[in-house]
Amino acid sequence: MTQGKTTPPVPVTVLGLGDMGRALAGAFLSAGHPTTVWNRSPGKGDDVVARGAVRAATAEEAVRASGLVVVCLVDYDASDAVLEPLATALEGRVLVNLTSDTPARARRAAAWAEKHSLAYLDGAIMVPVEVVGSAQALVFHSGDRAAYEAYEPALKALGEPATYLGEDPGLAAAYDMAMLDFFYGAMGGLVHAFALARAEGVDGASLAPYLTTIADILPPIAAYTATDVDTRRYVGEGANLAMMAASVDHILHTAKDRGLDTSQLAALKGVTDRAIARGHGPDSWSSIIEVLDQD
Amino acid sequence: MTQGKTTPPVPVTVLGLGDMGRALAGAFLSAGHPTTVWNRSPGKGDDVVARGAVRAATAEEAVRASGLVVVCLVDYDASDAVLEPLATALEGRVLVNLTSDTPARARRAAAWAEKHSLAYLDGAIMVPVEVVGSAQALVFHSGDRAAYEAYEPALKALGEPATYLGEDPGLAAAYDMAMLDFFYGAMGGLVHAFALARAEGVDGASLAPYLTTIADILPPIAAYTATDVDTRRYVGEGANLAMMAASVDHILHTAKDRGLDTSQLAALKGVTDRAIARGHGPDSWSSIIEVLDQD
Ligand SMILES: NC(=O)c1ccc[n+]([C@@H]2O[C@H](COP(=O)([O-])OP(=O)(O)OC[C@H]3O[C@@H](n4cnc5c(N)ncnc54)[C@H](OP(=O)(O)O)[C@@H]3O)[C@@H](O)[C@H]2O)c1
Ligand SMILES: NC(=O)c1ccc[n+]([C@@H]2O[C@H](COP(=O)([O-])OP(=O)(O)OC[C@H]3O[C@@H](n4cnc5c(N)ncnc54)[C@H](OP(=O)(O)O)[C@@H]3O)[C@@H](O)[C@H]2O)c1
Repeated sequence: MTQGKTTPPVPVTVLGLGDMGRALAGAFLSAGHPTTVWNRSPGKGDDVVARGAVRAATAEEAVRASGLVVVCLVDYDASDAVLEPLATALEGRVLVNLTSDTPARARRAAAWAEKHSLAYLDGAIMVPVEVVGSAQALVFHSGDRAAYEAYEPALKALGEPATYLGEDPGLAAAYDMAMLDFFYGAMGGLVHAFALARAEGVDGASLAPYLTTIADILPPIAAYTATDVDTRRYVGEGANLAMMAASVDHILHTAKDRGLDTSQLAALKGVTDRAIARGHGPDSWSSIIEVLDQD
Repeated sequence: MTQGKTTPPVPVTVLGLGDMGRALAGAFLSAGHPTTVWNRSPGKGDDVVARGAVRAATAEEAVRASGLVVVCLVDYDASDAVLEPLATALEGRVLVNLTSDTPARARRAAAWAEKHSLAYLDGAIMVPVEVVGSAQALVFHSGDRAAYEAYEPALKALGEPATYLGEDPGLAAAYDMAMLDFFYGAMGGLVHAFALARAEGVDGASLAPYLTTIADILPPIAAYTATDVDTRRYVGEGANLAMMAASVDHILHTAKDRGLDTSQLAALKGVTDRAIARGHGPDSWSSIIEVLDQD
């Protein structure tokens, strides 16, 4: 990263040398930061050590080497197990937990850090390992604002957008979960679409270019859906929920006729049925949020 | 449409003057084709008549006015009801049914046309009314190839890409259903994502820009998923189904903790569980097609 060359070097520690931990250490090294690393099991991270990272003998030794400590393990059961014995060693440092998990686990880890008066940031890495360290790498942070501001230049070594979302330490995980919720909905529909096409005699290569035209219309839909859900006004212009639910029903019947699994479509139809039963038929598709979120 | 000016005018009939039928008639008029229109109930289509369309007193009179007859009604129950008494009047003409329905209904209508030796094309309009007639308007056709070729220049008045998919008259509806299957999967995930974000204290306007980054990665994923499903080789590079199913589970737990409806996520998790039980854990996400399509 070019900006690495103009950022003053800051000692950084990376705990965890799985695929992602090694990518993080590599990005800090590329940006010129003296990097100390540690992994539970030996034999991982020879690549980053060869590039100049210092391997610490214990997690505590690794923590004491740097003012900025980044942890990235498989989940929060793992990061809690590693961090809890280190509360004293972490004093006066900034701890950034980039392990993925739920917002609830992130907030629980932040409460532990607060109890020990530790400066804590919880993050989420939104890109695969090969993108980490590039200008496109989206990495979210949330929690202690002063801690973020103190280390923002160093954290940008991981990804130029280095985004701070707010003081609630659960926010990074919340954005992560919400983005993945959309992603996996699309990924479930995507493979089902290929199954349905195949059952109708259409191969994947023939269908795929047309699926791109669907992907292209999603960003403007996401934008006006945001307005609908924020204002709780579901103005159906052109298309309305009743019409769209009838389409879902057509797809469901086509899939059923072909003996395909219809559990995903049936669940979606159940949601639209409940929304229509509550009077949302003439409203926009986004009105289904009223049955998803029953506050 | 500019190309309308260079296409020889061809008399066209449009049966059905709902929102879409009027848009179709308007597009034929804009391209300079003499257009005859009919609608079951009176009082619709004054706009296209004012622009030069000729209103026929009966459907039969409308059919006899043109060599190309386009029908666009609410569904196939409606188009069957209108077309079946017109078999004799349709002789020697090309009938294009742009009503949306399932591939099975399209094939049944084609079989009826074949019995009466009528040239039949079944189509699907993939864009909203306001896009019809523009260069971006995607309209699929399938069925009688000679009939398509004879009228392709006129059909391009509806949308420049005017795509002929093959002799199987169910193909236009099959592509339509498969594209919508992907679309509604994404649309189900989209609104659930906003519900989950809201439950975690994030408003729609804050989340929406990040959802665009998800939409942007879908076209390349659709392309390699097509290869996986066509070859039935599910090579998991970087990400594998087991890892991705664990993410689905994180989202599901986050949603459940917040009291959100989890029926869509539970259905998807059920699919991934069944695929993993069959040994697809180390394979790519696309391997779920093996449980969706149980041939
Ligand atoms: N890989 C990606 O593309 C990607 C993308 C975005 C986010 N992420 C997130 O990044 C995090 C790490 O992923 P990864 O790909 O690096 O996983 P990984 O390659 O499986 O590595 C897991 C790491 O966790 C450590 N670990 C597991 N249990 C532990 C315990 N009880 N105590 C101490 N260490 C323990 C492992 O140490 P040992 O070597 O001793 O087992 C290893 O360092 C995950 O939360 C993942 O969701 C990954
Ligand atoms: N609107 C869109 O943006 C859009 C986009 C893509 C595809 N489509 C498809 O285009 C088709 C037409 O949609 P639309 O928006 O035009 O619907 P619409 O505005 O509701 O119009 C429905 C049409 O069907 C006619 N009809 C219904 N039952 C009939 C019957 N038994 N006999 C004769 N005519 C009957 C109606 O005639 P009356 O006036 O006599 O009731 C009217 O002309 C549908 O298949 C739809 O899925 C629409």
